[in-house]
Amino acid sequence: MADDSNGKPTTNDNRDAKTEVEEEKENPSTESDKHDGKTEEEKRKETELEKYWRAVKENPMDFTGWTYLLQFVEQEGDEKMCGEAYDAFFQRYPYCYGYWKKYSDMFKKHGDLIKAAEVFERGLKAIPLSVDLWLHYINFQTTEFSNEEDAEAKLRKLYERAVAASGTDFRSDKLWDSFIAWEKSKERQKAVTALYDRLIKIPTQLYSHHFDNLKAHINKNHPREILDLDEFLRVRQEVVAKSHNYEEDDEAGLESAALGIDEPPGADAPPGLDPTVDDAEIKKVKAKLIESREAIFKQNENEVSKRWAFEEGIRRPYFHVKPLERAQLKNWREYMDFEINTGHHDRIVVLFERCMIACALYEDFWMKYAKYLEQQNSIEGVRNVYRRACEIHLPKKPYIHLAWAAFEERQGNYKTTQEILSRLDKNVPGLVMVAMRRISLERRQGNHEEAEGLFKEYLEKTTSNKCRTFFAIKYTRYLQKVRGDTERARQVIKEASSIDQQNERLFLQMLDVEYQAHPVDENKVMDVFQSILSSDLSIEFKVKISQRRMEFLEDFGTCIKRITEAYDEHQKLVKDMNSDKRKRLPDGGDEPAEKKVKVEVTPNGAPEPPTSVPPPPDPVYPSYPTWGSYPSYPSYHSQWPSYPPPPTYSSGYNYY
Amino acid sequence: MADDSNGKPTTNDNRDAKTEVEEEKENPSTESDKHDGKTEEEKRKETELEKYWRAVKENPMDFTGWTYLLQFVEQEGDEKMCGEAYDAFFQRYPYCYGYWKKYSDMFKKHGDLIKAAEVFERGLKAIPLSVDLWLHYINFQTTEFSNEEDAEAKLRKLYERAVAASGTDFRSDKLWDSFIAWEKSKERQKAVTALYDRLIKIPTQLYSHHFDNLKAHINKNHPREILDLDEFLRVRQEVVAKSHNYEEDDEAGLESAALGIDEPPGADAPPGLDPTVDDAEIKKVKAKLIESREAIFKQNENEVSKRWAFEEGIRRPYFHVKPLERAQLKNWREYMDFEINTGHHDRIVVLFERCMIACALYEDFWMKYAKYLEQQNSIEGVRNVYRRACEIHLPKKPYIHLAWAAFEERQGNYKTTQEILSRLDKNVPGLVMVAMRRISLERRQGNHEEAEGLFKEYLEKTTSNKCRTFFAIKYTRYLQKVRGDTERARQVIKEASSIDQQNERLFLQMLDVEYQAHPVDENKVMDVFQSILSSDLSIEFKVKISQRRMEFLEDFGTCIKRITEAYDEHQKLVKDMNSDKRKRLPDGGDEPAEKKVKVEVTPNGAPEPPTSVPPPPDPVYPSYPTWGSYPSYPSYHSQWPSYPPPPTYSSGYNYY
Repeated sequence: MADDSNGKPTTNDNRDAKTEVEEEKENPSTESDKHDGKTEEEKRKETELEKYWRAVKENPMDFTGWTYLLQFVEQEGDEKMCGEAYDAFFQRYPYCYGYWKKYSDMFKKHGDLIKAAEVFERGLKAIPLSVDLWLHYINFQTTEFSNEEDAEAKLRKLYERAVAASGTDFRSDKLWDSFIAWEKSKERQKAVTALYDRLIKIPTQLYSHHFDNLKAHINKNHPREILDLDEFLRVRQEVVAKSHNYEEDDEAGLESAALGIDEPPGADAPPGLDPTVDDAEIKKVKAKLIESREAIFKQNENEVSKRWAFEEGIRRPYFHVKPLERAQLKNWREYMDFEINTGHHDRIVVLFERCMIACALYEDFWMKYAKYLEQQNSIEGVRNVYRRACEIHLPKKPYIHLAWAAFEERQGNYKTTQEILSRLDKNVPGLVMVAMRRISLERRQGNHEEAEGLFKEYLEKTTSNKCRTFFAIKYTRYLQKVRGDTERARQVIKEASSIDQQNERLFLQMLDVEYQAHPVDENKVMDVFQSILSSDLSIEFKVKISQRRMEFLEDFGTCIKRITEAYDEHQKLVKDMNSDKRKRLPDGGDEPAEKKVKVEVTPNGAPEPPTSVPPPPDPVYPSYPTWGSYPSYPSYHSQWPSYPPPPTYSSGYNYY
Repeated sequence: MADDSNGKPTTNDNRDAKTEVEEEKENPSTESDKHDGKTEEEKRKETELEKYWRAVKENPMDFTGWTYLLQFVEQEGDEKMCGEAYDAFFQRYPYCYGYWKKYSDMFKKHGDLIKAAEVFERGLKAIPLSVDLWLHYINFQTTEFSNEEDAEAKLRKLYERAVAASGTDFRSDKLWDSFIAWEKSKERQKAVTALYDRLIKIPTQLYSHHFDNLKAHINKNHPREILDLDEFLRVRQEVVAKSHNYEEDDEAGLESAALGIDEPPGADAPPGLDPTVDDAEIKKVKAKLIESREAIFKQNENEVSKRWAFEEGIRRPYFHVKPLERAQLKNWREYMDFEINTGHHDRIVVLFERCMIACALYEDFWMKYAKYLEQQNSIEGVRNVYRRACEIHLPKKPYIHLAWAAFEERQGNYKTTQEILSRLDKNVPGLVMVAMRRISLERRQGNHEEAEGLFKEYLEKTTSNKCRTFFAIKYTRYLQKVRGDTERARQVIKEASSIDQQNERLFLQMLDVEYQAHPVDENKVMDVFQSILSSDLSIEFKVKISQRRMEFLEDFGTCIKRITEAYDEHQKLVKDMNSDKRKRLPDGGDEPAEKKVKVEVTPNGAPEPPTSVPPPPDPVYPSYPTWGSYPSYPSYHSQWPSYPPPPTYSSGYNYY
């Protein structure tokens, strides 16, 4: 495809069909002001770029298309071209941490470290739970900024931000290990202890490994080196107090056991001479340190064990456009329910956030999240969840939008509600559910003019008969039942039936309008019946309608003559239908000769024995009358106790 | 069974269940005043008689039972016993001409010729088209009364009655032949000619045979002897006039041919000398006589040929309780239609009467007959047909009764209509169709108290829940739509639902009442929804109702919160339903392992390729909303354009 005169990719052909969301993401690259006189190579690149862009513009949900575009711009493009592509990509797929890294790398490659860091910051804002992205960022900082004056302080601050954001993740072990190792490398043993003390309270995958490391850390170092002075003195004090209590002297053995030292108990040397005095005390202190941490460890282990099966079930914790296995979705659902039941708000939110990364494309999890937050009365939280779901991950999903709209309407935010719905309606035209919600929003506001305006708009712009009929029926009900305007209801349904002449539902609605009229006008009802019976609709439908006419006349009619006439006409219709059916048989409807001599059932309904009597008329189980009610069409005869059962052949038998 | 003290058979145990018709036919024998001190033989007889009677009283349609009774009374009984049995039998089966004969024979055997004749008279009144019965009667008269003074005149009168009543029957040849033979035996040749002249105009089976006989009759006798003098003279005059016209002299040969005489033409002898002059003239007269009848014969032959196939198709022209073959019923129907189309009223009526003998137990033929007569404006004729059908042959058939009732109502005979319907209602209790007609009759008369009285009566006396519910629903509609009394409609339906608590229709009707209320009260509608959802009805039904509640709220509700809540509750219900279904699976609902790893469909609804997009939302074919309309339950989701299609497993996916 060639550029147009503005050098803008010629995407106009698709422009009209574009949704609002796509318009919003209009790629700035299309507005770059290239000049004529470009090299062949430049032109080739531009053309290819356009093609890659077109794919994702036409279908922003085409993830593979995006990856092609990103690959292309990375290989071929300049910083600007890359930036545009990545920015557009992240607008839809912010949970792809790997691409944030790539994006940042691109800037790094071009020597723009500031921008590279900015990308990390943006990425981590988008996906703060990504341990991997934090580690990439830390690694980047370590490598690129280690020579700066305050590098260590900055890095520590970064580590702190990382553990604050993602350190409670069950799979955050890598980050903690990295942080601890870094502090160790800086020989900040006290900081290491402090980190371990934070870590052993958090249920993570490697909780046991961390505790082992903590014990080794305690054993390896003098308590004074790894503890705050306050803690050291406090623990030592406790140990000393105990040492003077001779009755508890056998604690030494226990301490050795706690320390993991298998040492035979020796006799105490006199004070001042015995070099082991200090050692023994330290041992006791260490044992005390470990002992106190052991309780925390046990408690944490308990928490871990409750979550272990759920965590094992998470086989794809990261974001991916590929669908999740059923079992994994089920696991997430159950895990969320479990965590919600434990009632620990922070943990619940973290788990939700983790869940939303893996299940970002499943609207029910977003709704679960919003619902949880609404129960916590976190109005802003709910709004934020809906906004992220609808504006980033699921711009075309109707249910989440409807839920958001309902939420905002509950908050009394009529305008916002209107915007959410009309944006969705624009993005995904033709969803009658959304249309009806827009209309009902206006109705609830008492904006009847707007509601009617919408009805008319939908009726006009709908191209399918089925949809138009749907709206016509809804509009009719609205006019009659909400506005109390039967006359206009009649007009709407009549107009609709003049367009969609073969639609049975419309005719049924016409009947309903008359039946709902207050009071019912028998002549008008009869007119509708007549118009159906003289229409081009199927004979089967007409037979049903004719049955209903008989029932209407029996229940509401004022004239026996009409009933008789309706019965006679019904007989004729049934006869026509049956002969139609016979004609439609492959043999032209002529029954085989052997069938013709079949003995007619007796008037008693029992061919054998010939003089037997019909069964007594009770139990008589009529089916129920259906006028004005929901149930499906009744067979007129089946609805009455059929006595005698109509003979199979003699259609004239049940003369009416 | 022993007699009770009155010698009345102890049929009281069945008395309560008896219908009015049975009561009417209460056998007088049960009231005969037998005295104690009967012989053993008498007692045996009485007991047996009772048993035979009981069979037919319990089931008057048990034809074989009747034949046993008649056989028994004929062998064992006296005149009175026979009379009672026969009278009762003929009340139901007057078309059995053989039994009329037997009945008459019984009196004859007992020497009671007057009664024997009376029976014939009664029989012929019941079945005047029975050639056989006429012939039996004639035979009886001939045998028993030949010695009376005016026997011949009486017999002739009887013959005349017979041919008047049944002589136009296609199969009346036997009667005509008998009549003619009898007149011949009395040597009344002119009467014979007159009979033939009547007969050759009538399409009968042996029409050709009769014409041959007529020709032989003419040839055999001198015209003067077989003709009225007037006719003889007139024809002779014509012949004489022609004889003098020499140009037509070769007519003689033609006449000979017409007479069937193969005679070579001879030379005319001189006048006065030629003895053949007179003969020749007579031949010419005879030829003339036959010629003129030939035209009538041809015309009649034409009529016969039109009916021949129909008449051939009548394989059982007499009455029988055994059912007719299909082909015969079809033949009757087509024959009647043919005859009606020819428009010859007398013939049509005769054919109807013949048809009614063969098809007496088929109500559609009675109705066809009545309808024909009504088109002829023969009100009394119609009434008579209905009366015969309903009071004799089909006392328990509802359709013919309803047709009669409708006819009388059209004539403005409210009382008669009421009687017909209430008699049927008594005879065949439990026919809701009849009940509804009784009620609608009162309604049309403006007798609302009576209509309501009937509703209440049916509600009270109905023992089946289904029927009571039927009436409750009809009554509810009547109160609300006809009487405009929504409050009482609510009461009726509520009461009904307190009795038939598992009936979905009642709950649907409750909803309908609220939806029909003017104006609709949202809270009341919600109350009904709630009462259904908290009932013991099936979860599947509740899910449907819950869908309808969502739709109602969307279309008419004033509060978004209610919609959201309804959606949430609906989700729960669907979940419960699905888990119920899984529980009901034989393996306890655990899916096989291979199923569990099944890949969840993408949020896009398309598992392959993973990055594909959903199909564009149009064409969107919503099914139609059904609130307040007839159609069957919609699936809530199917009714909206499902975008995306709900995943098969993740019920939470469509969160509401």
